[in-house]
Amino acid sequence: MPLNINISQDLYKKAKKIMPGGTQLLSKRPEMFAPGQWPAYYKTAKGVTIVDMDDNTYTDMCYMGIGSCTLGYADEDVNLKVINTINNASMTTLSTSMELELAELLIDIHPWAECVKYARSGGEAMSIAIRLARAATGKDKVLFCGYHGWHDWYLSSNLGNGDALGSWHLLPGLDPLGIPKGLMGTSIPFEYNNTQKFKKLIDEHDGEIGVVVLETVRNIIPDPAFFAEIRKSCDEKNIVFILDEITSGFRMNAGGAHLLYDIEPDVAVFAKTISNGFPMAAIVGKRNVMENAEKTFVSSLNWTESVGPAAALATIHKMQNNDIFSHTTRLGKMVQELWLKAASDNNLEISISGPIPQLSLFSFDHDNASAIKTLYVQEMLERGYLTTTAFYPSWAHNEDHINSFEKDVNLVFSKISNILQEGDLSSSLKGEICHSGFNRL
Amino acid sequence: MPLNINISQDLYKKAKKIMPGGTQLLSKRPEMFAPGQWPAYYKTAKGVTIVDMDDNTYTDMCYMGIGSCTLGYADEDVNLKVINTINNASMTTLSTSMELELAELLIDIHPWAECVKYARSGGEAMSIAIRLARAATGKDKVLFCGYHGWHDWYLSSNLGNGDALGSWHLLPGLDPLGIPKGLMGTSIPFEYNNTQKFKKLIDEHDGEIGVVVLETVRNIIPDPAFFAEIRKSCDEKNIVFILDEITSGFRMNAGGAHLLYDIEPDVAVFAKTISNGFPMAAIVGKRNVMENAEKTFVSSLNWTESVGPAAALATIHKMQNNDIFSHTTRLGKMVQELWLKAASDNNLEISISGPIPQLSLFSFDHDNASAIKTLYVQEMLERGYLTTTAFYPSWAHNEDHINSFEKDVNLVFSKISNILQEGDLSSSLKGEICHSGFNRL
Repeated sequence: MPLNINISQDLYKKAKKIMPGGTQLLSKRPEMFAPGQWPAYYKTAKGVTIVDMDDNTYTDMCYMGIGSCTLGYADEDVNLKVINTINNASMTTLSTSMELELAELLIDIHPWAECVKYARSGGEAMSIAIRLARAATGKDKVLFCGYHGWHDWYLSSNLGNGDALGSWHLLPGLDPLGIPKGLMGTSIPFEYNNTQKFKKLIDEHDGEIGVVVLETVRNIIPDPAFFAEIRKSCDEKNIVFILDEITSGFRMNAGGAHLLYDIEPDVAVFAKTISNGFPMAAIVGKRNVMENAEKTFVSSLNWTESVGPAAALATIHKMQNNDIFSHTTRLGKMVQELWLKAASDNNLEISISGPIPQLSLFSFDHDNASAIKTLYVQEMLERGYLTTTAFYPSWAHNEDHINSFEKDVNLVFSKISNILQEGDLSSSLKGEICHSGFNRL
Repeated sequence: MPLNINISQDLYKKAKKIMPGGTQLLSKRPEMFAPGQWPAYYKTAKGVTIVDMDDNTYTDMCYMGIGSCTLGYADEDVNLKVINTINNASMTTLSTSMELELAELLIDIHPWAECVKYARSGGEAMSIAIRLARAATGKDKVLFCGYHGWHDWYLSSNLGNGDALGSWHLLPGLDPLGIPKGLMGTSIPFEYNNTQKFKKLIDEHDGEIGVVVLETVRNIIPDPAFFAEIRKSCDEKNIVFILDEITSGFRMNAGGAHLLYDIEPDVAVFAKTISNGFPMAAIVGKRNVMENAEKTFVSSLNWTESVGPAAALATIHKMQNNDIFSHTTRLGKMVQELWLKAASDNNLEISISGPIPQLSLFSFDHDNASAIKTLYVQEMLERGYLTTTAFYPSWAHNEDHINSFEKDVNLVFSKISNILQEGDLSSSLKGEICHSGFNRL
C-alpha cells in the first residue's frame, strides 16, 4: 500500500526553507533514509511504535531516537519521574539535589572517577572535557579518533589539512567554515587500534599534546595493547586521556563501555544513552582534571534544571534493575542473523558490522548500494517499518517484533533481488537516492 | 526564627567535593548570597514559593530561576504542554513539527529574520551564532560587549590581555585556562554606548572583524546613535551583527528587546526567557548568515527533542495572550520604590539600577557593602524570603507579595541600620561574607 505522507512532506519542505539543514541533527534528515519518502515528523510514539503526522503507524526497527531511547519511547518509569519533577518545578533559584544523587551514582559505577560536571548535549559536554583537559595540562594539542560533534576544537582538524575527518572519521565533505584559523594544527586524528601510528604521533608532537580523546568502541572491538599504550603514553607525558562514551556508554552495560574492556581513562563523557531521549550529558573524571572547573570558567543556567538529572537517574536505575543488555544483545544478534539469512535466501550480498549487537549494521555489497538501500527503506516503509541498514535494539523490542520484521525483510529482499535481475532499479524508486555523509540539501 | 538548613548544607558540602564549583551555574552558588546560610537545594516550588530540603518555605523575591521563570515556577500552561509532549514521546527517530511551528512564530515576531536554528543552552547557542557569522564573512575576529557565556571564543579575550572581561564585562578574576593560545587576539571587548571608541576599534582592525556581538540592553538604556553606528559599520564592512538577547529578550516584551529600540541585527540569540526554565535556545537570523549552517557542520541529537520547543511555544503564547510585561514593569517599579523608601526611612544609602524594572537591582553605598548585603540576605531568609540586592518580577508575583515584602524589608533595613550604628556588623553575621564575581571555592 503506497504511503500518504503529504502533511509530513509539506512541513519538511517549509522546514528546509526556514531551518537551514532541515533538521537539527544531520542523522535525522529524511534524505539520509529515502528523500521524499521518509516521514520527517512524528505525532506520538510509545514503545517501538511511531505514528507520523499523516497517521501512518510504524515499528522503529532502526535507530530508536538515533541511539538515545534504549528503553523504548515514552518509557513509563522515566516519564513518571520526569513528570513528577516537572510538577514540583524543574527550575528555581535553588539547585536540585538530584544532580548530587546522579553524581554519586556515576562515581559509584565508575570507581576510578571522583568528580562530575553536567551539560545538556553531547558535543557541548565534549567541549567541556577538552577545556578541562587543556587547563589541567597547559597544552593545547589534541590527538583524537572518531566522531565527537560540531565544536571548533574538533572541526579545526580539517583546517588546511584537506579532509582529515573524511579519511577515517565518518564525515566526508565537511568544510571547516567558520573555525578560527588560529586553531590550525591543534587537533590531529589518529587511527583506531593502530598502536604504532599512535606512538609515532605522540613522538612527533612530543611535549605538545595535552589531550588524547577517542570513542571507546564503535564498529571495531578495542585492542588491549592499543589502549594500554594510550594509558602509558598519557601517564608518562602528562596527557589527559578522555573517552567519548556518548554512543558506547550505557548501551552494552549500565556504565561506560570501558568497564567491560578494563580501560581506565581520566575522563569519560556520557550523553544520549543516559537519559532515554531527555537532554542530559555528564562529564565524569579524576579530580586532578575536573578540579579545573574551579579555575577556568564553565557555567550555564540550563545545566541546572531538573529534568535531565531526573531522566538520567530513572534511566540508569532501570538499566541496573532489569536484564536489559542481555535482551538487547540477543535481539541484535537475531536481527543480524535474519538479515544474513534473508540475503542468502534471495541472492543478495551483504556484510554485517556487528561486534556490538546493540549497534548492528549491514551494507549491500552491490554496485548501486545507495540505490538498493533506498529501495529497501522505501519498501519497508510501505510495510510499516522505519528501518534502514541499521538496527539498535531497545528494551521495548520483543521477539514478536523481530519475527514480523523477519518476514517482511525476506519479502523485500526477494523483491529487491527480482528488481536487480530485471534491471529496473531506478524506475522502482519513488524518490531520489539517499544521501550518505555530509551533503548540502 | 533561626533557620534549620542542615540537610541542604550537608548536601552542598558533599556537592563541592564531587562537583567542582558546587553548582552548575556560578550565579546559583550559595556563596554568592550568604555562605553557609543560603539553602542550596529545593524540594518543590510553585508560583513564587519554594520549599527547601529542610521543609522551610520561602517567597522568591530575587532571581526566579536566575531570570528564566518569568511566568513563575511550575507554570500550569507550560507544564501542561510539556507533560502532554512527554506522554506522546519527547524523542524519536523522527523530528517534532513543533520545531517548525516555533521557527514560524519566532520569524513572525521578528520580521527582519528569515531562519532559525536551535540549541539547548545559551552559551552553546551563542557559540553557534559566532560560528555562522565567521562562516558568512570568512573573518575570525569578534568585537564584543557584555556577558556571553563560557565558550572559547569569548574567554579567549582574556588571553595575554590581563583582565579584559573584568574591566567592563562583569567577570573579574577569570583565568583563561584551557583556551587554545591560537585564539589570542580574536575577541576584542568594546564599551557599551561608546560610539567613538567603537568606531576607533573598527578602524584599528579594518577588514579583520567578522562579528560584532553585544547584549541589547542590561543596566543602561541603548543610545540610538551607538546602535546606528554599529548597524552602519556592519553593513559597510561585511560584518555580522549579533544581539545576545538571552537576558533581555522576552522579558520586557514578547520578543527581542531590540524590537522596542528599533534596532535591526543580523542574528539574535534567545534562551533563558523563552521556555520558563526548560532547556531551550534559539538562533534567529537573516538567510545570508543562517544558510551557513548548511555549509559548516552544526548538529546535535539533543537539539531534536520535543520538550524544549513545547515549552517555548507555550511560554511565548502565554506571553502574547496575557498582560505580563506591564504587570512585571509595575511590580519592578514598586520594589525599586520600596527599597528606596525603606533605605531613606532607616538612614541607609542605596543606589538603584533599574532602567529595566524587570531587572531591578540596588547596592548598599556603605563601606562593608558586601557584609551588609550578606546580613540583608541572612535576615530576609529568616523572614521567609529568598532575596538579595536584585528583584526579577514574574507573572506569578502579585501586590500581596510586594506588600508583605515591603514590611519585612523595612524591618530588616531598620535592624541593619541599628547594627551599623552600634558597630557590631561582623558579629551579627552567622556565616561568611558573600562572594562577588568569580571566586574559587
